[in-house]
Amino acid sequence: LSLLSVTAVSDLLASNASAQAHSQPGPGKTLKPQDLVPVKVPPMHHPTEKNDGPPPTPIAPVKRIGYALVGLGKLTIAEILPAFGSCKFSKVVALVSGDADKAGNLARQYGVDPASIYNYENFDNIKNNPEVDVVYIVLPNSMHKEFVLRSARAGKEVLCEKPMTTNSKDAQQMIDACKTAGKKLMIAYRIQYEPNNRMVRSWVRDNKYGKVRLIESTNVQNAGDARQWRLNKALAGGGSLPDIGLYSINTARFLLGEEPEWVSATTYSTPGDDRFKEVEETVLFQMRFPSGVLLNSSCSYGVHDSKRYRVFADKGGWYGMDPAYTYNGLKMEVSHAEGKIEWKENPSLTEKDQFALEMDHMSLCVLENKPVHTPGEEGLQDQVIMEALYESARIGKPVTLRKISGIDVFRGPEPAELNG
Amino acid sequence: LSLLSVTAVSDLLASNASAQAHSQPGPGKTLKPQDLVPVKVPPMHHPTEKNDGPPPTPIAPVKRIGYALVGLGKLTIAEILPAFGSCKFSKVVALVSGDADKAGNLARQYGVDPASIYNYENFDNIKNNPEVDVVYIVLPNSMHKEFVLRSARAGKEVLCEKPMTTNSKDAQQMIDACKTAGKKLMIAYRIQYEPNNRMVRSWVRDNKYGKVRLIESTNVQNAGDARQWRLNKALAGGGSLPDIGLYSINTARFLLGEEPEWVSATTYSTPGDDRFKEVEETVLFQMRFPSGVLLNSSCSYGVHDSKRYRVFADKGGWYGMDPAYTYNGLKMEVSHAEGKIEWKENPSLTEKDQFALEMDHMSLCVLENKPVHTPGEEGLQDQVIMEALYESARIGKPVTLRKISGIDVFRGPEPAELNG
Amino acid sequence: LSLLSVTAVSDLLASNASAQAHSQPGPGKTLKPQDLVPVKVPPMHHPTEKNDGPPPTPIAPVKRIGYALVGLGKLTIAEILPAFGSCKFSKVVALVSGDADKAGNLARQYGVDPASIYNYENFDNIKNNPEVDVVYIVLPNSMHKEFVLRSARAGKEVLCEKPMTTNSKDAQQMIDACKTAGKKLMIAYRIQYEPNNRMVRSWVRDNKYGKVRLIESTNVQNAGDARQWRLNKALAGGGSLPDIGLYSINTARFLLGEEPEWVSATTYSTPGDDRFKEVEETVLFQMRFPSGVLLNSSCSYGVHDSKRYRVFADKGGWYGMDPAYTYNGLKMEVSHAEGKIEWKENPSLTEKDQFALEMDHMSLCVLENKPVHTPGEEGLQDQVIMEALYESARIGKPVTLRKISGIDVFRGPEPAELNG
Amino acid sequence: LSLLSVTAVSDLLASNASAQAHSQPGPGKTLKPQDLVPVKVPPMHHPTEKNDGPPPTPIAPVKRIGYALVGLGKLTIAEILPAFGSCKFSKVVALVSGDADKAGNLARQYGVDPASIYNYENFDNIKNNPEVDVVYIVLPNSMHKEFVLRSARAGKEVLCEKPMTTNSKDAQQMIDACKTAGKKLMIAYRIQYEPNNRMVRSWVRDNKYGKVRLIESTNVQNAGDARQWRLNKALAGGGSLPDIGLYSINTARFLLGEEPEWVSATTYSTPGDDRFKEVEETVLFQMRFPSGVLLNSSCSYGVHDSKRYRVFADKGGWYGMDPAYTYNGLKMEVSHAEGKIEWKENPSLTEKDQFALEMDHMSLCVLENKPVHTPGEEGLQDQVIMEALYESARIGKPVTLRKISGIDVFRGPEPAELNG
Repeated sequence: LSLLSVTAVSDLLASNASAQAHSQPGPGKTLKPQDLVPVKVPPMHHPTEKNDGPPPTPIAPVKRIGYALVGLGKLTIAEILPAFGSCKFSKVVALVSGDADKAGNLARQYGVDPASIYNYENFDNIKNNPEVDVVYIVLPNSMHKEFVLRSARAGKEVLCEKPMTTNSKDAQQMIDACKTAGKKLMIAYRIQYEPNNRMVRSWVRDNKYGKVRLIESTNVQNAGDARQWRLNKALAGGGSLPDIGLYSINTARFLLGEEPEWVSATTYSTPGDDRFKEVEETVLFQMRFPSGVLLNSSCSYGVHDSKRYRVFADKGGWYGMDPAYTYNGLKMEVSHAEGKIEWKENPSLTEKDQFALEMDHMSLCVLENKPVHTPGEEGLQDQVIMEALYESARIGKPVTLRKISGIDVFRGPEPAELNG
Repeated sequence: LSLLSVTAVSDLLASNASAQAHSQPGPGKTLKPQDLVPVKVPPMHHPTEKNDGPPPTPIAPVKRIGYALVGLGKLTIAEILPAFGSCKFSKVVALVSGDADKAGNLARQYGVDPASIYNYENFDNIKNNPEVDVVYIVLPNSMHKEFVLRSARAGKEVLCEKPMTTNSKDAQQMIDACKTAGKKLMIAYRIQYEPNNRMVRSWVRDNKYGKVRLIESTNVQNAGDARQWRLNKALAGGGSLPDIGLYSINTARFLLGEEPEWVSATTYSTPGDDRFKEVEETVLFQMRFPSGVLLNSSCSYGVHDSKRYRVFADKGGWYGMDPAYTYNGLKMEVSHAEGKIEWKENPSLTEKDQFALEMDHMSLCVLENKPVHTPGEEGLQDQVIMEALYESARIGKPVTLRKISGIDVFRGPEPAELNG
Repeated sequence: LSLLSVTAVSDLLASNASAQAHSQPGPGKTLKPQDLVPVKVPPMHHPTEKNDGPPPTPIAPVKRIGYALVGLGKLTIAEILPAFGSCKFSKVVALVSGDADKAGNLARQYGVDPASIYNYENFDNIKNNPEVDVVYIVLPNSMHKEFVLRSARAGKEVLCEKPMTTNSKDAQQMIDACKTAGKKLMIAYRIQYEPNNRMVRSWVRDNKYGKVRLIESTNVQNAGDARQWRLNKALAGGGSLPDIGLYSINTARFLLGEEPEWVSATTYSTPGDDRFKEVEETVLFQMRFPSGVLLNSSCSYGVHDSKRYRVFADKGGWYGMDPAYTYNGLKMEVSHAEGKIEWKENPSLTEKDQFALEMDHMSLCVLENKPVHTPGEEGLQDQVIMEALYESARIGKPVTLRKISGIDVFRGPEPAELNG
Repeated sequence: LSLLSVTAVSDLLASNASAQAHSQPGPGKTLKPQDLVPVKVPPMHHPTEKNDGPPPTPIAPVKRIGYALVGLGKLTIAEILPAFGSCKFSKVVALVSGDADKAGNLARQYGVDPASIYNYENFDNIKNNPEVDVVYIVLPNSMHKEFVLRSARAGKEVLCEKPMTTNSKDAQQMIDACKTAGKKLMIAYRIQYEPNNRMVRSWVRDNKYGKVRLIESTNVQNAGDARQWRLNKALAGGGSLPDIGLYSINTARFLLGEEPEWVSATTYSTPGDDRFKEVEETVLFQMRFPSGVLLNSSCSYGVHDSKRYRVFADKGGWYGMDPAYTYNGLKMEVSHAEGKIEWKENPSLTEKDQFALEMDHMSLCVLENKPVHTPGEEGLQDQVIMEALYESARIGKPVTLRKISGIDVFRGPEPAELNG
């Protein structure tokens, strides 16, 4: 793996050896040392210049983990399918859609075997397709549960888009089903695999500029066609909160590693706006974490796009991202005082495809039979919090949550491949 | 006035003529045409380049409105006294302080006659000082009321720092006292006289990029010495809310021209932080305006400085300021979509001293005997809102406010000198 | 092609039909209508929001143009090989290297048939490999000529990295050889296929903010290992000028469409810096174009990385890029005056892989048998200019060039696929 | 002085004591300790926050150094007269103009005694005006010499705008005349007294990010009215070079402390543009300093305003200002690499009025009888360099300058009041 040290690579290989016994991904997918050694390139630039690290080291296509994509909406077509071109451990091998023409067209475009196209009825046949290691569920929210259960039953590992589902009860059933089937369940929280956000998290954890006391997070965009599934309560489960407000919740939890003690929310929809007949337009919400950190957050489907967060510390600095949460163009920002100077800083890392990073984490966990970093339990906790937020908005009062101690309690081990 | 057209100048002079009969500022303060005509400078730069307008046109020092400054704290020393150097219609002629040494030192530095130094006991003698036209009250919040009343009784016009006072009842008494005395009362909301903020307001009112649906505003800083009056409940009346959260409230009201229907707030102070034994550290607050606009806001005394707001519209754009609310270095920001392009823009105006603009507005109103733009009623309304916010935090529920229709109902006429 | 209108697609297909007769790319590479129709996605965002256009529409892998990469240095490994993952019309099918181990490793990583690995001796056998449509030459500069000639002789289309070669005489021979062989020769000027730069060019051509009078362009970086081929005169032909100064020359020519009348240069190398024993460290150079536009430019191998250009117009505005020329993170900047406001603007387009855009242009030209946009003649002209710059530095005087009238005289037709 | 430590203040006072014996500024202008002690303000902000230093400590108006302004053009009216409002040691006491009406109007605006208005004929009577300590010459360039000589003869200290004059011979005579008269001669290089530029200089001198190898500097603007004196050869001496290109020359010399070994220039004026019938529009120029640093620079009167410089170092960083050279809104920028991160940084200092800083330096030197930091010799050296640049443009070759060793050889002692 391009970012691992040599030791880590051998560790990985050692763990692979035993891992294969348990997980048995598709035939021929046993990693060997040469699969993981990056090609050396000479030091073209001076050592004081930015170091982009070794070049990407994909493993051979035949050894990559095979994905079936369920649901061929905009996210799949415009982001996920193109992202396989940047994957090192993952490839697309099957498509599942209710629209055979669309599936056929995309299969041709991306070189998927027409025999590996499924519809929602015959999806269960996928169990007989040895090319498929992982099913990636990219359906409307209320359909996630059914397909997670069917995927687990088909003996496949599962990657499920966020929000995990529309309620906490279903989320628990999804976790249980995968556990029973002995299959991994990862929720597609790409922010947690994205290097800029991980750097911000390291600053939080290292008390850069003191302890954090306040986080502000905004995720707003302007919904289009009133008939899209995101605006349909039965399909989406809610409006801006589960779709984009969720980023603020999940990212605050990820940065701090803590779980909120109480939450509070207000919802609002512009009267007469036909996009918001079923689901809410805007939610303003707050929560407090055990260390005393407050989160203040806004999400909306009714205004021009803006996605950002700022983390305020108590010893002369703050930092964050603007834009945050977007598929590309992320930018970190830092401000701190130093004597008579106020520094505004934008550190930048070379941009990586976020969907590729996320899928490759899943693939490595499958190849090595390791637990994923963002399992179903991580998604369940967000469902619990969103239910409490809606309850708070309904009763007009803050809602207290069950006390949860410890740090990162719903997360699996750190994704070692991202810590280089 | 440098920014007025020739017609406006003659209008002004006409109105001055009658105004003098009523207001009679100090002797010799009758404006004549030549006092107001800017010196012409040749067009050094191409007409397509930025036009900084005519140079400043101060009136003769002898004709400028004379100010007594009451309270010689940091704001007076570091901002207001130096700002007279940028004033066109205002001069400092008296100082009022409990510290005779400090007053003497500053009087020497700024050329104030030692005979025009007062203390809090003999302050009422100021009525005999014809050089003093306006008393500018820069004391701890809870002392504002007493000195507004004494100033009005002394027959002086009054400029009072924000927050106007610590409760709405006192605010009403201050308004009444000035009305009875036939004296102007202006609250020092410098944001409302600052050109960048006025430009943002014009965008709101003109529906640039559609109608506004959401405003976010943040005003946080890190308090120092635990013994300062701002952290003393009896002197300050509250913590971060009345001092800096007030900017978010007042600016949102100023931008929209509307008054909130309901407000909601949560307060928090870090346990064991000895700065926050009496007053609150942090307030997260929300409000909704009649047109449906939501405000989400944070203020805090416990984290690194950040002051900004963003106004989100529903047709492809948002705009705001970051930093906002600071004494200098204000920067506007705009984002809007145009086909495949997302534009991020920073328009800039040549920076002006904000305290000078504010004092010069007061002085022009005195010279012309016109109503001020931000009278006591504007300050009272903020007191009403802050009381409701504290009540909301106390009961853990939103608080509904008395319905107020109309636009800019608590404001005086537009400051014509700022509309060029 | 995803960005073409339906009419353009049918035009393209019509031209394809006849094109195939002449160019005959690999068997089965005849485009059909369904190869080019993007999958429709519903309008998720409001029409006033940024429009990212239709999703990418790759053609089926079997139909994509096959590339042999000659030279497996850092550019190939870290940029070009990964870029195939973002290509819509191009795939890698062969590798050519003097290092069999490296070639074998990369072939495994990218799924290249081991039988399609060549070395510099047996390279000519590539003529028997029907999978290879295009040879992409990524070797040290002085080796370009030999491999262009051998590729043409092998009956392959040629894409050659910049600088084309080390002198204008060789450049002419390369052009002649491809012409004789009836093969395309494209120079890899990725800037000319990059959407941000193309937008800046459209502003120049449209006289945005008036006529351009001045361009400043900087391309500096800090060279590493003194033994690398870029610092070897025999391999590189020169130092910072042909490697990175070339970007300034070629981009100015591209933006304006004109050719310089005279050029002037000064070279300098820090005494005792062992990286610059053979090639120059820094060149400051100037040129004037027939319309009177001046270019002032710096390139250096001795300082911290900075790549940018600014185009100055004569009616209230300038625009450019900072950074420019980098592989990613490009950012446009605009400044213009409007009354009392100076606007600083950063328009952004969704980032695209620049190597993929460039290779896909070559592939489309092969599929359609159309002339490339940046043929050998475009590269030859840069060689002529660089020779004049070195001559100017040698004699300490400006050097006049042969007068060339017309616009874009060395370029092929506009890349239609980039004009959507 | 507000920025001096207590020790420095006593040093200053000690030196004042003896200084008064020699320089004898106007009666009553002897500084006493209490004149210089800033008023204490309590630590309102946390010690980790930005420290703006003590508030300004002006000395009593009666003790401030009195200025006569010669020439009432745009710079005087729009910048210098308003700047006295921000001065701590300087006041305007006399005006000299050929336009009596304008002088009268401005005298009234700024409270100047009508008896202290002079014209160019009776200017020499200023010797009898004890209020005038310093004559500040803000006339067209070719008139500087005459008025420096007449001012020195009148027994006044002299502050002269840049460029010092139109040729090096005159510059030498101006130096000689002031020396003979025992009067100070300071050239108004405001950049050398401006805190941001001084911070950049400290980075250069401290080898921040290694040794500097390259500086780029741009100063372009778009001239207006073709009849203005700046476009008249007899009055201005040249076009964009002496007016704005001079900033690049002087700032590079200031940053490095070195003097150029050779210079090279190209000039150009757009044919038919009636602004450039007498003076040049654009100059591209280069120079090399003894340490090997290269300067590449552009100045122009024909394009949209842009003023900036960037200093490139050889160990992972560069820094500079964009905008630079402007009267306000200066912004520093820094870029440096750190592992996988490229940092872009904007440090900011609280903005100060640049003309006030410059005049206050002159005033302090008069009050203390100390040598000025930018004496006539500093201006003469720029004249020598500009003559060489014009010569280079004329002959089409670089011009070698007399070798000058040492650092800051043409400058007086550091301005101690700016080093806090």
